Amino acid sequence: MASVNPPRGMRDFLPADKARRERVLAVIRERYRAHGFDEIETPVVEDYAKLHAGIGGDNEKLAFNLLRRGLDADGIRAAAEDPAALSDLGLRYDLTVPLARFYATHRGELPTVFRSIQIAPVWRAERPQKGRYRQFVQCDIDIIGDATARAEAELIVASLDTLDALGLTGGSIRINDRRVLDGMLDGFGFTGDERPGVLITIDKLDKIGPDGVIAELAERGATADAVAAFGEFLRRPQTREFLPYGEAQIRRALPEGAADDVVAHLVGIGEAAAAARGGADEIPLVFDPFLVRGMGYYTGTIFELAHPSVEYSLGGGGRYDGMIGRFLGQDVPAVGFSIGFERIVDLVPDAADAGASAVVLVHDRDVPVAELVALKAALVADGARVRLEQRTKNLKALLERAASDGYTSFATVAAGTPRDAVELKPLS
Amino acid sequence: MASVNPPRGMRDFLPADKARRERVLAVIRERYRAHGFDEIETPVVEDYAKLHAGIGGDNEKLAFNLLRRGLDADGIRAAAEDPAALSDLGLRYDLTVPLARFYATHRGELPTVFRSIQIAPVWRAERPQKGRYRQFVQCDIDIIGDATARAEAELIVASLDTLDALGLTGGSIRINDRRVLDGMLDGFGFTGDERPGVLITIDKLDKIGPDGVIAELAERGATADAVAAFGEFLRRPQTREFLPYGEAQIRRALPEGAADDVVAHLVGIGEAAAAARGGADEIPLVFDPFLVRGMGYYTGTIFELAHPSVEYSLGGGGRYDGMIGRFLGQDVPAVGFSIGFERIVDLVPDAADAGASAVVLVHDRDVPVAELVALKAALVADGARVRLEQRTKNLKALLERAASDGYTSFATVAAGTPRDAVELKPLS
Repeated sequence: MASVNPPRGMRDFLPADKARRERVLAVIRERYRAHGFDEIETPVVEDYAKLHAGIGGDNEKLAFNLLRRGLDADGIRAAAEDPAALSDLGLRYDLTVPLARFYATHRGELPTVFRSIQIAPVWRAERPQKGRYRQFVQCDIDIIGDATARAEAELIVASLDTLDALGLTGGSIRINDRRVLDGMLDGFGFTGDERPGVLITIDKLDKIGPDGVIAELAERGATADAVAAFGEFLRRPQTREFLPYGEAQIRRALPEGAADDVVAHLVGIGEAAAAARGGADEIPLVFDPFLVRGMGYYTGTIFELAHPSVEYSLGGGGRYDGMIGRFLGQDVPAVGFSIGFERIVDLVPDAADAGASAVVLVHDRDVPVAELVALKAALVADGARVRLEQRTKNLKALLERAASDGYTSFATVAAGTPRDAVELKPLS
Repeated sequence: MASVNPPRGMRDFLPADKARRERVLAVIRERYRAHGFDEIETPVVEDYAKLHAGIGGDNEKLAFNLLRRGLDADGIRAAAEDPAALSDLGLRYDLTVPLARFYATHRGELPTVFRSIQIAPVWRAERPQKGRYRQFVQCDIDIIGDATARAEAELIVASLDTLDALGLTGGSIRINDRRVLDGMLDGFGFTGDERPGVLITIDKLDKIGPDGVIAELAERGATADAVAAFGEFLRRPQTREFLPYGEAQIRRALPEGAADDVVAHLVGIGEAAAAARGGADEIPLVFDPFLVRGMGYYTGTIFELAHPSVEYSLGGGGRYDGMIGRFLGQDVPAVGFSIGFERIVDLVPDAADAGASAVVLVHDRDVPVAELVALKAALVADGARVRLEQRTKNLKALLERAASDGYTSFATVAAGTPRDAVELKPLS
């Protein structure tokens, strides 16, 4: 037991960090609820078979699996030929697969259009690096049972409102539709087999630029014609248009032949979000025909949340109309939006703790325990938050630590000090 | 994928249950904080070696362990001889072992006397049965670095105040000290080897009565003299005394020869708690010399929380002065109190949601999406919680479901209804 650190890639949270995290989560929860979403909870563990059904994409490979209980030596030896026999459960790697399972279990007890909140940790065996952890919190809202643009608009408006409430005004949404991408790739002659690889390449556009994308597509063995046509489109000026966009504007940003219903759906989202935010200027939606998003389960709209203070995205989501059917045996439309909690928590401006006064009672060593505990209880009953501290030689250091822990005033107490004589002085 | 249920012994929480749980947790968190405790968080996963160091008692056997990643067939075969090679991590089975590890990691960043809050789930592979789950939430407060009775008194007062705040007034605390039990068993001639078995038997006193305890002790092979002496003591009337107790009263409840410092510590706890709660009548402490508590790591005071509405205990805790040394290499006094969240959450009286008005907007099918989303946003901006529902044939059922989900008013909306014309009617 040489190390006393938490496991690799996982974190402890000390009081100041934990308080900040809980404060931010409380704002997110409250805003999501205001927008008509209802919080649910699922176990952190799901059946191995459900986590490894090919729905979770690359995350399935990153899952932490639980060791099956009760295996004897023979069972372990047999598992050498069939590693799945070693595990019957796993830690969830996202909140979407568990939500689909939950909906299939409880559909009869939920409203026709179900708007869920999930605020909870997930686990992935990522290679630990700065800003990437093996346990992290996701904040998801999802709308199940609504195939219309209303669902996307509600998600976008709720998410932007939440960012605003956190003091992160100025957020914007990049939006695309998987069917736009599919149609684009069809149109440029990429075959179905080539598509997943091409999408991975396109996803790097911001990193490697149009030339990098085109070079990589050629390497991937796409036909020269396809690469040339796609490259020409990619280099067109102004392929990214701002909302409010009419149909004509979206079409300008797309190759010929984009499906009418897809364009109409995007236009509907933009109009509804603009109406809710009080005008087109207030709804910073950016249509980006090259937005990909990693997950394989998306079937329609996809979006990403950006903020001017950082270059990476702060969240995102999309439509996954096919997933619930995997559990329920019947397709139900679904769309979700996830705020990347670990990415925003450090961006949120500090807020003064609007709570009660917080008092440190610094007492001499000889004050009887009963006196101390009674004084503390009296102050707590009056609405304060109270910490007892025995006086140390370095009173200044003691008070500075208390101030950094959020305490706002202090009093010194000697033996026999009555409640009325406790004099609070401001800390700072 | 035949079943869509959560894993065996684990639970989903639907919106009404989840809201109730979060409301109760918020009260607990707020009260604990008022009493000067600070919340921390550790990963749900700890190193296998730390979870299986013999500190966690019987819970170690109930741990869910994680399958080591990257094992090949040879590694799996080799693990048949050494099952620990299959796992390097595990899910925590309590919050005390992780707290001791956390304290060892971060001691230099924490106050001299550290008062922690942990509100988090733990996992145990219990045989599933009514009221017993494999994932459940614990609400722990602990005081590390204070060996005096002040620590126990602060824990007891904070816990009773929290129960009061939840509407569960009338709680009481049974208290004992492991050293009282040890001294008692010594005095009655039980040897050190016999002690763990004897404690298990004494722990059944409430279930099997004095005669059952004595019969079982005889079966366990305790000497006839020891059993007879213990039986006589056990059958004495009034061995359980109420506080306020002076030293004389505690001694009456104990066999001859109980250590002075142990008695003084118990008296100190009682006096301090009584002073804090406004008098001896307000601090329902029951000294119970037969209280055992299951965990092997307790070294001093132990307590249990009772409430007149149920026969089982609602929480408990004790002093574990030896545990932190296992991680830190240096003993630090520590004492904790855990509220059994799963046991109290269903006892807490319902409280009216003191939050904002909650409105269901029932709209005709033909209301344009942009109108709907804008109306909703306007009501949210005014401080309401808003759910959109498309009108169904059975409007009554729709409104009843909304009311049961906590919505308080509704409005019907046709195409073109302006914000000012939305007329809210009470739901119920």
